[in-house]
Amino acid sequence: MHAVIIAVGDELTSGAVVDTNSAYLAARLGELGIETVRHETVGDDVPALIEAISRAAAQAELVIITGGLGPTPDDLTRQALASALGTKLVEDPRQARRIEEFFSRRGRQMKPSNRAQALVPRGAEAIDNDCGTAPGLTATVGKARLFVLPGPPHEMRQMFTLRVLPELSAETALATRLVHTFGAGESDVAEAIADLMDRRANPRLGTTAQAGVVTVRITARGPDAQAAERLAEKTAELVRARLGELAFGADGETLPAVVGSLLRSAGQTLAVAESCTGGLLGALLTETPGASEYFLGGVVAYANEAKACLLDVPQEMLLAHGAVSEPVAEHMAAGARRCFGAEWGIGLTGIAGPTGGSKEKPLGLVYIAVAGPRAGAVHRHVFPGTREVVRRRAALAALNHLRLALKRP
Amino acid sequence: MHAVIIAVGDELTSGAVVDTNSAYLAARLGELGIETVRHETVGDDVPALIEAISRAAAQAELVIITGGLGPTPDDLTRQALASALGTKLVEDPRQARRIEEFFSRRGRQMKPSNRAQALVPRGAEAIDNDCGTAPGLTATVGKARLFVLPGPPHEMRQMFTLRVLPELSAETALATRLVHTFGAGESDVAEAIADLMDRRANPRLGTTAQAGVVTVRITARGPDAQAAERLAEKTAELVRARLGELAFGADGETLPAVVGSLLRSAGQTLAVAESCTGGLLGALLTETPGASEYFLGGVVAYANEAKACLLDVPQEMLLAHGAVSEPVAEHMAAGARRCFGAEWGIGLTGIAGPTGGSKEKPLGLVYIAVAGPRAGAVHRHVFPGTREVVRRRAALAALNHLRLALKRP
Repeated sequence: MHAVIIAVGDELTSGAVVDTNSAYLAARLGELGIETVRHETVGDDVPALIEAISRAAAQAELVIITGGLGPTPDDLTRQALASALGTKLVEDPRQARRIEEFFSRRGRQMKPSNRAQALVPRGAEAIDNDCGTAPGLTATVGKARLFVLPGPPHEMRQMFTLRVLPELSAETALATRLVHTFGAGESDVAEAIADLMDRRANPRLGTTAQAGVVTVRITARGPDAQAAERLAEKTAELVRARLGELAFGADGETLPAVVGSLLRSAGQTLAVAESCTGGLLGALLTETPGASEYFLGGVVAYANEAKACLLDVPQEMLLAHGAVSEPVAEHMAAGARRCFGAEWGIGLTGIAGPTGGSKEKPLGLVYIAVAGPRAGAVHRHVFPGTREVVRRRAALAALNHLRLALKRP
Repeated sequence: MHAVIIAVGDELTSGAVVDTNSAYLAARLGELGIETVRHETVGDDVPALIEAISRAAAQAELVIITGGLGPTPDDLTRQALASALGTKLVEDPRQARRIEEFFSRRGRQMKPSNRAQALVPRGAEAIDNDCGTAPGLTATVGKARLFVLPGPPHEMRQMFTLRVLPELSAETALATRLVHTFGAGESDVAEAIADLMDRRANPRLGTTAQAGVVTVRITARGPDAQAAERLAEKTAELVRARLGELAFGADGETLPAVVGSLLRSAGQTLAVAESCTGGLLGALLTETPGASEYFLGGVVAYANEAKACLLDVPQEMLLAHGAVSEPVAEHMAAGARRCFGAEWGIGLTGIAGPTGGSKEKPLGLVYIAVAGPRAGAVHRHVFPGTREVVRRRAALAALNHLRLALKRP
């Protein structure tokens, strides 16, 4: 089965907004085994839309259109579809009621322009919108099945997932699992599961990398939802077993949240002392709601005086070894524990760049110390990349070292 | 003049990568007064490419294609252009030399596949690539002028700016200025300069908003570069005058960098004490290289004990007013100054959500105190949005309050 995706809107053709809907839809269709052969972006213009619809319907069995369903006069997709079908727009009373209710639930008055959103071309059907006013549309044009979805990405994704996907995958149910890893490159992760990555196999596996986190995506098909879920879960277990300590979480979990759960279940607390990351480690830890249960706080010791003063790092040590050194990281971790009365402390000091490197201490050199109730360890890294990349990698690596320390018996 | 933009690559049609090139090009063409009527994305497939080229050339006077110029067998744009022109590929000796030199300068051997990148359809011309191996191509197809640029965004942008733009804007020179503001919504900024925002006027003005920073973009045209620059600068001055204290920087400047320059020129230092932002304020301040000249460090006082202990916020005050209160913010700012021996201190405490709000202290409530060598002030905000948005807005608002305090005589 082949698909063509059409995105509609002057804000897209003019470049004011980057279209992310088409890539999202193509990726989701790919999981179903449907190949997208072409994307097209056209402005809010009826003749251009009619031409795009006709051409797409002649080329593929599935056409998905996003955008142009809003209430303003430049939203013309409904009208263009009516013309392409050779019919007229008529009000769908059920959709008109739904839109009225949408406004009354929010204590707002429906504007007359919103009523236009209940207009549906004769011969097409409305698709309920679960998080906005504009209903979607579906129709058959020539031999092609056509769906029109709203342009705002969250409305589009919701409607696609809840209303369109079940129709497209009537014969095959789908289940997806994500396995997140930290500590190895994308190619290393891919190599460890290479035998599972045949693109035509079921389940289908793929990897993506973002800021040091490499994620394995598993998409399983089955005759029903339960079978698909079972296959996806069995494969996720296999992937986790292969990747061992590298795998830190599943699906929506993040590294800070996983570290937080480990601390919470151990009933232990954490404090941090950071230098080159300037507060980023604390910021990551507190992204998770409820972090105050286990995160007591931190010291950003950017100046050497702060390291000496607040964290009791001896001046002589700073002079003898330099601020970016193993003993200073250790003292910072211990200082953080002491300062805040926490069970765990992290000390992080490094050279984020773009200047300040030397032959002995290159740019990207970072020492990360983890001190715990029983013992501690210091890790040396040299992270490649820009100041921004080095800082983010360093903060995430610190969380990962703490995760591994918390898991050790 | 009308344009059609074509993006080429299986990674784009399949949705593995989001195409940002087309939006970039459409926006830049728009600044020249060239309207992009359609974008199209096709896979690495010669017949599909030939059809897309022919259709685009019949529709617009300008066609820009990105991607498919790499050295691997699935890079087929060169070949498709040759077919569309009805000619053959021949090696361009100058480009072959340039590619050889590209590798030898990097101490690497050129692979035979890279030599294929020097192939140019007879009737087309190569365009030098200043930061990669693949040359671009330009040709006339029917009545349309056609440019083919490499797919990697940094190579594409460089080639477009250095090699294509001058040809497109031979008669009009262009100059761009950005004016960044903080503290007002996009619609308020747009209203203050509404009379300057006529879309057909020269210069052309537009606004964009990101994480609370509203940017005014000014694009001026003129008979020569000097005239365009003069007009852009004059308009930027006018916009800055209109926006007054809201305008904090120009072009590549960020709020943390502007605050940093103000501190550096005053020869003064800063320390921060943050609660709900968890280190984000320090992380923003240290994004700028050289921040150690003026930023001494910070305390992330996430737990109340840390506020009491490290920052000398009295326990009774925490009990009487709560951690999110005006006096606590003031004490935190004073504590940060004292702790680090800094001239300036910021204290930030708030409720980032998603839970913990009450009628008196709603979600998004943030107190920001700025204490300086002469005096201090506390500001109360209620930021709408998610935990992430509240935290980012709060950190940026703190920087903006410090900026205004530093500018006061």
